[in-house]
Amino acid sequence: MEVNTRKALKGTVAAILASATLFGFAGLANAADGQGVEQLKEHGAAQRIAGVYGNAKAKNVILFIGDGMGDSEITVARNYLHGVNGSFDGLDKIGQPNLNKGVETGTGQYTTFSLGNSSNDSLMAKDKNGQLTGSKTAGVITPVTDSSASGSSWATGTKTYNNAVDVDVEGNPQLNLIELAKAAGKATGNVTTAEIQDATPAVLESHSSERACYGPQGKWDGTDKNGDGVVDLKDAEAAGIGSCLAPQLKANGGIGSISEQLIDTRADVTIGGGAKYFNQLDQSGKTLWQAAADQGFQTVKSGEVDGFKALSEANQDKPVLALLGDGNLPTEFNPSVATKQDPAKDANPTECTVNEKWLGNKGASLADFTDKAIDLLQNNKNGKDNGFFLQVEGASIDKQDHNANACGQIGETDDLDKAISAALNKVDLSDTLIIVTADHAHTSQIVESQPIYALSTVLKNRDGSKTTISYGTSEEDLYGNGQDTSGDVEGKADPSKAQGNMSHTGTQLRIAASGPGASRVDGLTDQTDNFYTIAHALGLATEKADQDKLSDGASVTAKDNKNQVFDIAGFNGDAVLRYELKDKDGKVVSASDATTPLSGLRVKTAGVTTIDLSKFITSDAKYSLTVTGQQSGKTVEIKDFAGPNGTEGNGAAQVGPNASSDKPVASGKVNAPKQNGVLGKTGATVLGVALLAMALVAGGLAIKFAKSRNA
Amino acid sequence: MEVNTRKALKGTVAAILASATLFGFAGLANAADGQGVEQLKEHGAAQRIAGVYGNAKAKNVILFIGDGMGDSEITVARNYLHGVNGSFDGLDKIGQPNLNKGVETGTGQYTTFSLGNSSNDSLMAKDKNGQLTGSKTAGVITPVTDSSASGSSWATGTKTYNNAVDVDVEGNPQLNLIELAKAAGKATGNVTTAEIQDATPAVLESHSSERACYGPQGKWDGTDKNGDGVVDLKDAEAAGIGSCLAPQLKANGGIGSISEQLIDTRADVTIGGGAKYFNQLDQSGKTLWQAAADQGFQTVKSGEVDGFKALSEANQDKPVLALLGDGNLPTEFNPSVATKQDPAKDANPTECTVNEKWLGNKGASLADFTDKAIDLLQNNKNGKDNGFFLQVEGASIDKQDHNANACGQIGETDDLDKAISAALNKVDLSDTLIIVTADHAHTSQIVESQPIYALSTVLKNRDGSKTTISYGTSEEDLYGNGQDTSGDVEGKADPSKAQGNMSHTGTQLRIAASGPGASRVDGLTDQTDNFYTIAHALGLATEKADQDKLSDGASVTAKDNKNQVFDIAGFNGDAVLRYELKDKDGKVVSASDATTPLSGLRVKTAGVTTIDLSKFITSDAKYSLTVTGQQSGKTVEIKDFAGPNGTEGNGAAQVGPNASSDKPVASGKVNAPKQNGVLGKTGATVLGVALLAMALVAGGLAIKFAKSRNA
Repeated sequence: MEVNTRKALKGTVAAILASATLFGFAGLANAADGQGVEQLKEHGAAQRIAGVYGNAKAKNVILFIGDGMGDSEITVARNYLHGVNGSFDGLDKIGQPNLNKGVETGTGQYTTFSLGNSSNDSLMAKDKNGQLTGSKTAGVITPVTDSSASGSSWATGTKTYNNAVDVDVEGNPQLNLIELAKAAGKATGNVTTAEIQDATPAVLESHSSERACYGPQGKWDGTDKNGDGVVDLKDAEAAGIGSCLAPQLKANGGIGSISEQLIDTRADVTIGGGAKYFNQLDQSGKTLWQAAADQGFQTVKSGEVDGFKALSEANQDKPVLALLGDGNLPTEFNPSVATKQDPAKDANPTECTVNEKWLGNKGASLADFTDKAIDLLQNNKNGKDNGFFLQVEGASIDKQDHNANACGQIGETDDLDKAISAALNKVDLSDTLIIVTADHAHTSQIVESQPIYALSTVLKNRDGSKTTISYGTSEEDLYGNGQDTSGDVEGKADPSKAQGNMSHTGTQLRIAASGPGASRVDGLTDQTDNFYTIAHALGLATEKADQDKLSDGASVTAKDNKNQVFDIAGFNGDAVLRYELKDKDGKVVSASDATTPLSGLRVKTAGVTTIDLSKFITSDAKYSLTVTGQQSGKTVEIKDFAGPNGTEGNGAAQVGPNASSDKPVASGKVNAPKQNGVLGKTGATVLGVALLAMALVAGGLAIKFAKSRNA
Repeated sequence: MEVNTRKALKGTVAAILASATLFGFAGLANAADGQGVEQLKEHGAAQRIAGVYGNAKAKNVILFIGDGMGDSEITVARNYLHGVNGSFDGLDKIGQPNLNKGVETGTGQYTTFSLGNSSNDSLMAKDKNGQLTGSKTAGVITPVTDSSASGSSWATGTKTYNNAVDVDVEGNPQLNLIELAKAAGKATGNVTTAEIQDATPAVLESHSSERACYGPQGKWDGTDKNGDGVVDLKDAEAAGIGSCLAPQLKANGGIGSISEQLIDTRADVTIGGGAKYFNQLDQSGKTLWQAAADQGFQTVKSGEVDGFKALSEANQDKPVLALLGDGNLPTEFNPSVATKQDPAKDANPTECTVNEKWLGNKGASLADFTDKAIDLLQNNKNGKDNGFFLQVEGASIDKQDHNANACGQIGETDDLDKAISAALNKVDLSDTLIIVTADHAHTSQIVESQPIYALSTVLKNRDGSKTTISYGTSEEDLYGNGQDTSGDVEGKADPSKAQGNMSHTGTQLRIAASGPGASRVDGLTDQTDNFYTIAHALGLATEKADQDKLSDGASVTAKDNKNQVFDIAGFNGDAVLRYELKDKDGKVVSASDATTPLSGLRVKTAGVTTIDLSKFITSDAKYSLTVTGQQSGKTVEIKDFAGPNGTEGNGAAQVGPNASSDKPVASGKVNAPKQNGVLGKTGATVLGVALLAMALVAGGLAIKFAKSRNA
């Protein structure tokens, strides 16, 4: 009989503590009952273990998300792949005390609910029928989350509404883990098998009131949709898909779509699918691919597996953007079809087959992505010096569960499991915290026998037994009998086959961790606690006041002594900036848009955000520029600086033999924060910063443009 | 910001261990893939963390089982009762590090599968159609367990088939936690809201090849079923329900039904429902109530709440048998009815109401049972000196989930939660380990909106939000439209209402613990690991060899110097005894039945089992008696003892003035164990020990009697 020494010591610790009341424990109470949206909408308000931390710090954190991977989905896949008493090689090692030599571990459950959106409808886009595209339960808790609200909760620590990406129920951006990790000098990575704009990766890239706001042209795939032989914005109109709240678009003075913000966020490593949306056009008419390349990104496009393999460095000078498929990446297994009750299924249980289109066949599985991402981050200078944060998503567990596709979901779980194994082979759990969890549970149920009305699939398990899976939660359509009125199940209208868009479920689900800080996932927590677990392990700022301080070093500096173009840096506690430019008479001559919380300039995370005011700074008289971080409320003001050739004021052009070279430009640093950081509300003249007047008609598109706000 | 010192120390421990390779960790491997019944059927073979123990010992263990309480059922009830971000007062405290001052805690998941039964059909009863009543998947793993196989797995550490109660797949009895706790001198208790013969309590009372073997007359309720005005065994025949494997019945030389074995097991405290089955008649024609009273039990019957409240002691002289309802006890909430998709349900969500028949209204809730049981066990001398083991089951979470009755399942979860709170108020977690888990997950799913075909209920949560629950796993019948062919859903044939016998599910589920040894539930374990966790914490024998040694002190002693009636004691490593009586010529004149592993004498657990051989020991010549423990293989042989008035041999009657009084009886102690402990196989003459020739005709009854084995 072996003695687990860690356990023994844990017991000793418990004994010491039991007799030591000097160790204070505050807050020894459960989360309060009956709280509603008004209480829970605040940053951190839904935590179940607020403020309870250990001292362990991790250099690196890797967060593995199985999208839709509830305990049932885990068990389905384990039964099939390994046998009912078998084990995943990677997934079942995380959090397992006996399999982690001397490593801190934890396993627990967390709640995943989301909130109804604000009752302020103007924050929500509407579909072609005029219906809100966001949560339909304004002001009331939503027991079943979607992937965007759940992702936002661990990425930011703030509960929000289904459809929201890193904004709270009032639409206000909440700083996410990549923003905070970059502010702390860490390397960052974001890996998925989904479209990179999909909710789970999006929460590390962007702040969006609409999860479908993939690009400046919504979900247009960048191809010739109207058949006129030319790819232009008319094709986006013809595509008629996608949804952005109009003021969020850069064309309307907003911070931009998810893909555009991905470029601004600039993780060191981004790997996934969704390449086609980078064929969309930015405000200057460039494709987003070109825009990314212009910003220094190493781009790898759909199918370029060799290009992916060849990647050998990733850093802030040369970040990696590798999108190896146009949409979601092909699944590991070919799909199975759930059907009605039929004894033949018991007699001939299903065995899954490998999908020949799966990129894993070519060495580009999720495990390969993970292996590559870790290599790149470990070799990155920031990663070496300060550590890294990496999220890896197995995305299609969810997607295939929606489709009642048992083989599909199982293959994706296998892919995720192998990605975890790949990580375990690369990192040292004494300095790296690995967390494995899901964003929400899902529909598949392991039942005793085929249900009478629900769809089902009978699988032959590794050990020879059979798993019968029931799929019965679809709200509309189920048998492919033409009843599909949801309109979102394209290309599956085959009456001979199963249909259905199965439902997420709202059950608490598993979280497991190994490495420094892992035991914080023990017990019952909330998904928002996961933000604090990760952020605390990495030493990131979690509380609002600490996040605000990240902008204390903010500065605004003219790029040259013409004082027309400004570099904005150090707003590390902010995602959105606003500015206001006044002339010598105190009249506002330019200001950022302030229509919604997503109006303004997107901060280039831990980088330099540039603003070109040359159209407005034309005289040589003095100007004043105020730049405010919308999250921190910190303001940089450059008072009375000189115009292009002005010789008076801050950064005035200097002439003559005694001209000094050490004050060539206008510049400013943070002043005391304003109590109310909102600018532009009282500005008499508010000018949109739109550079490109896009010609789209809002019409049938959900992308609608704000009316002109020029005076 | 508060620092959780326990976490900090855990981290420190991990750090120490990380740098200390001197701490050996053997077996650093996951459970092996692809194992089948042949590997997993052995005692302990399905463990996932075999041999990995801490040093913490608990004086007491309380195991709370929410029958069918998967993570979904927990979340459903929490949402409704406390709000979506609320907390159970008891259930959510267990395993929660921040709510357990300095106490060892653990949370994890475990697998719950069962095994197909042996291919030896003779071990299984058959129903009236000749179909096996046990598992139908001989030799193959069953991914979805029933309550009896799951209960057997934590009660004994051995995986078995659905329908089995503490016997392995070959029908061999496996020692359970109450047997082992009693062998260790502990007090014991068994509390439930179900019929006390139901699977989950039964696994602490009995060894039965059929979970429905409630009493000697199966499931007869002890009333006048044939209307002849007399209650007798003809009524049992008329009842036509229930199922026992014939050789298991005492009438056929077996160890008896579940209720009869409950009396033999003799826990100090037994509280639950199922009173009516104690109206059945034993072999002497007495009701089981009378039989229990004759054995010293304090009996409290259906409805005798005052009698329950008045209970003030419970011990081996006066154990408590309190069955406060005839069947399963009334639920806390009145039932809700799941129905088809209907917008009216969203508009008017269901609010549950308290059932006026709930015993909690009179002070006899599960919390009251628990409170009373702990009081009785703490005041019991064995409990005081050596500690106690108590199981508390919230049984109707499962039963109401089967019925798609959301309010029913929620009320039962509430009842269990309050029972946990009651325990937390009574015990000290520094010496008491509390474990909360379930036997299997269940059907209810929290979905986004009402499903199209599955039944659903929409509930109004404490916080004002709505939980939509889908019930879609029934194999037969669903809408109460007369399609019910299962025949086991009595009294619910109302076409206007929902029907359905929803399915257990096979997903891994939550286990949480607080107290010494609690961290052993961390990570992924199997249900059989729970046996080892509890047994190890209490210092009970877990390995077969150690269990066998519990019979090392076995003895057989004639009750008086007639040497006809024998007290058998000390077979603490056994559940079943066999005996063989030979005359002076070596001819077998009596032997216990040996037809099945459940044939023979039931050991009175940690007590004295008496065997009356006066019908066979009639001459004064010498006899030899051999008694063998069927589990341990240990044998006691009394060789060549004298008959009633014999004057030669062991325990011979002594006459005359020098007669010694210190050797008045024949007696023997354990010899070396036999390799093959099976007796009677070769006996030329094997006599059944049936004392009462019951007049039942096997006919339509599933209770069938073995043919006479008299030579």
